[in-house]
Amino acid sequence: MKKRLGPTTDLMPMPALLVAVRTGEDEANVLTVAWAGIVGGQPPMMALEIGSGHYSTPFIEREGNFTVNVPASTQVVGVDYCGMVSGREDPTKAATCGWTFLPSTKISSPLIAECPLNFECQVVRKVEASQGAFYLVEILETHVDEKVLKENKIDALLVDPLIFTPDGKYYRLGECLGKAWDVGKVLKK
Amino acid sequence: MKKRLGPTTDLMPMPALLVAVRTGEDEANVLTVAWAGIVGGQPPMMALEIGSGHYSTPFIEREGNFTVNVPASTQVVGVDYCGMVSGREDPTKAATCGWTFLPSTKISSPLIAECPLNFECQVVRKVEASQGAFYLVEILETHVDEKVLKENKIDALLVDPLIFTPDGKYYRLGECLGKAWDVGKVLKK
Repeated sequence: MKKRLGPTTDLMPMPALLVAVRTGEDEANVLTVAWAGIVGGQPPMMALEIGSGHYSTPFIEREGNFTVNVPASTQVVGVDYCGMVSGREDPTKAATCGWTFLPSTKISSPLIAECPLNFECQVVRKVEASQGAFYLVEILETHVDEKVLKENKIDALLVDPLIFTPDGKYYRLGECLGKAWDVGKVLKK
Repeated sequence: MKKRLGPTTDLMPMPALLVAVRTGEDEANVLTVAWAGIVGGQPPMMALEIGSGHYSTPFIEREGNFTVNVPASTQVVGVDYCGMVSGREDPTKAATCGWTFLPSTKISSPLIAECPLNFECQVVRKVEASQGAFYLVEILETHVDEKVLKENKIDALLVDPLIFTPDGKYYRLGECLGKAWDVGKVLKK
């Protein structure tokens, strides 16, 4: 039997991402974001909801860019901390988490060195959506740890990304069920 | 060492979602989508990239709505099929996959009965993004199988959602690393 829950945001899985934005000379704030997804391929585009009340928001408006960093599952404690504590309370959250910054190549906001996968994102525009707004960004550059490459391509199991579920839990990738554009072939007539 | 890959869409994890849109009397097409995410909470909003060339697209334009269905990992073969074969080739993909439709309560497009979690989505607008466009939708209703509820809340492990990674693989949820707004407390000063 189906049950109706009303309008919810209970989509799953969600990514657990670290958004880093330049806040000053050699300094950046880090914010955890799960409401995000790719929305275009040519050029690569991402949509992310980052509420207007966040410490990061005026810096995003000023810089017009941020990095999106995909943390490994080993970074879960810091990811949760950066989603729980505001930069107003701890303006050097990355240091608290034991993370360091690397300069980006195309934008002013830095990469989180310890994350295996990083995207340099330029804000294209803020899209008004009813009572809120979300950022539409263009991905200008991708950085990846060499150790998560397999035959020169990113291997998700080596990245070991964090997964967020809307019941408030963090997970790792589990059983692999097969290849895309492959396991469905058995249904072809 | 970091390596630069240029602009990519290699965000992870991604959801593997089934979009169903009414195509005619008691008929709907099903399309697999991974480029999607929540982008607002009040009201709940989702952004999804569905290219203009898809069989579903004119029907989405006509109906102004679709459902987003979260498949369980057991549905992986059908999910891959619906991402590989167009409705032009197989206009009754759901039947091929062994799935049935249930009427929605607020929109004309139906739910996929066999998916444990379903969202009724009204198109709010099409957002132009460089060379492409994506749909911004409002989630009007959530349907969930009673068997995936635990103390009246959705339990992600019971939903057992499919995860898509940009290296073209399907995964299940794996090890749980803890609760959000909890595991990070150890870093609080």
